[in-house]
Amino acid sequence: MKIETKIAQFSSPLYLESGRILEPYEIAYETYGELNEDKSNVVLVCHALSGSHHAAGFYEGDRKPGWWDGLIGDGKAIDTSKYFVICTNVIGSCFGSTGPMSNNYASQMPYRLKFPVVTVKDMIRAQMHLLSNELGIYHVRAIIGGSMGGMQALQFAVDYPNFADDIISLAATYATRPWTIAFNKVAVEAIRRDPRFKHGNYDKGDFDEEGLDGLAIGRIAGHISYLAPDSMDDKFGRNYVNNDGLFELFGRYEVERYMEYNTANFARMFDPLSYLYIVKAINTFNLSRGYDSLHEAILRIKADIHLFSFSGDYLFFPSEMEHIAKMLDRNGQNFTYKEVESD
Amino acid sequence: MKIETKIAQFSSPLYLESGRILEPYEIAYETYGELNEDKSNVVLVCHALSGSHHAAGFYEGDRKPGWWDGLIGDGKAIDTSKYFVICTNVIGSCFGSTGPMSNNYASQMPYRLKFPVVTVKDMIRAQMHLLSNELGIYHVRAIIGGSMGGMQALQFAVDYPNFADDIISLAATYATRPWTIAFNKVAVEAIRRDPRFKHGNYDKGDFDEEGLDGLAIGRIAGHISYLAPDSMDDKFGRNYVNNDGLFELFGRYEVERYMEYNTANFARMFDPLSYLYIVKAINTFNLSRGYDSLHEAILRIKADIHLFSFSGDYLFFPSEMEHIAKMLDRNGQNFTYKEVESD
Repeated sequence: MKIETKIAQFSSPLYLESGRILEPYEIAYETYGELNEDKSNVVLVCHALSGSHHAAGFYEGDRKPGWWDGLIGDGKAIDTSKYFVICTNVIGSCFGSTGPMSNNYASQMPYRLKFPVVTVKDMIRAQMHLLSNELGIYHVRAIIGGSMGGMQALQFAVDYPNFADDIISLAATYATRPWTIAFNKVAVEAIRRDPRFKHGNYDKGDFDEEGLDGLAIGRIAGHISYLAPDSMDDKFGRNYVNNDGLFELFGRYEVERYMEYNTANFARMFDPLSYLYIVKAINTFNLSRGYDSLHEAILRIKADIHLFSFSGDYLFFPSEMEHIAKMLDRNGQNFTYKEVESD
Repeated sequence: MKIETKIAQFSSPLYLESGRILEPYEIAYETYGELNEDKSNVVLVCHALSGSHHAAGFYEGDRKPGWWDGLIGDGKAIDTSKYFVICTNVIGSCFGSTGPMSNNYASQMPYRLKFPVVTVKDMIRAQMHLLSNELGIYHVRAIIGGSMGGMQALQFAVDYPNFADDIISLAATYATRPWTIAFNKVAVEAIRRDPRFKHGNYDKGDFDEEGLDGLAIGRIAGHISYLAPDSMDDKFGRNYVNNDGLFELFGRYEVERYMEYNTANFARMFDPLSYLYIVKAINTFNLSRGYDSLHEAILRIKADIHLFSFSGDYLFFPSEMEHIAKMLDRNGQNFTYKEVESD
């Protein structure tokens, strides 16, 4: 599988949903496989909150491949011997695309809290610019993503009805519910109130050795929602860490050690401001915004649309994808919906 | 309804499950109604994580009554014209019973992190001391509580099978699951890592004006689990705070404002060390500990036992109370079980 990692620079303005403008801006992206002659084999993959454009394959020296390596590759479900797969880092993120710690062109200083709020609509508009203006791609075979990636896939389906043949959206929703916003609130408050966050005026590199506690804590709340109660039973049970004492105040259950371990690393590698901005994009996600109603938004969809939910999903519940499926069904639109039995 | 609030002092040691000893210790408690002559009308009410012995009635100047005022009073479900109701503050708490910020007798300095870990078993043993040694009550009509209060009720049923005629346990479990421990982990880490917590060496009064952020953040995670997804939809929907801008990074959905408001107050009035100790007691709750098995523990129960779960409970799921009910059923023990349809 051929992999290329690039950064595209745009000097034309990106008009944001908020009315603000991002100019200039950059998009980091990665491609897998090869574009065929008539550019008809493109699959766009969209990443979730913590993801990046590095969706598959190994970087030199890395022990872990890209986040969807199980799915993307030669002979895999998204077969790179057939398809030319593109994954871009969303704007607002911290892995190469323009985000809050990027330099504002005017001052050549990081935007920080002056970075404009971006939405899922903005994220996909930026991707449209990349595909059309940079790569000359005006139509794709399919768009696929899960969670925030699934939101992007749905937003593509609604905003650009003729752009993709197929839309595959996993574990997403039609509009983020207060339950999810509440989970995100833990991260927002934990980051904001952390003294080392310095109201956004930290230095790059401040968290390389010791991640921001606020981000780690927010991430613990996130991990709760990523694991279902039953799957935690299976994974950890009530097992206690071997060398910790049951009657030590800070003795830990295995589930606690897992949370510590998984969040410490994350807090070193993810930028806290980017986290706040991306969480905001998730919170403000609402397919119907800009249209008369959700019904009107859904009616615009022309692609074949494939929706997947997961029975044990405690962040985006199956009922949310089902709600979209029912609308598509009533409208006689082409869709499939599957609730996958899984924790 | 006659209300009395008292503090009982014990110079005899309280032997804890950990092997450590609490000596001397105090228990704050409140009583409602009057004890009849043969002391046969006692109902013991057990409080949850954030509760206190103030379960009903108004304190002078307070706008809010005790936490279960809807249930306890003359002519109410727990009728104080018939019953003598007792509610004690659990040891480890911060409302009058001995806890981590109480003075260690030897040094006359607060225990802080040297306070022994207490368990639900210890909490009820302390209540037994109060009832028998202080009040001369050797048998009660009923014990009732929800969440951690429901754990205490169950533990009473198992540890002291002849002590109560009826046990009523709401929204509890047979052993705390990793899902709940994970929610608690947010609070533990947020408190521990808050610089103002000073590794437990803060001063009393430090948080009177501005509560500890870590506690407020932990409490947000708690509030997520106290409200079901559907009830959040009903309560907040996707409503945005009127004067906040949708495209302001820190603009808030109503659910976020609710979380801020409800946790700020709490962080001013609840002691962070007590929170850590009580959360530890919840995490370590396991009815089977000290017995051969859960089956053996349940078999000990002689009281009529009444279990309630709530369909929309995302902290203690109905299946957990059902698990106990099934065991009681198989054993031919006297029980009722009801899953209440409620968010």
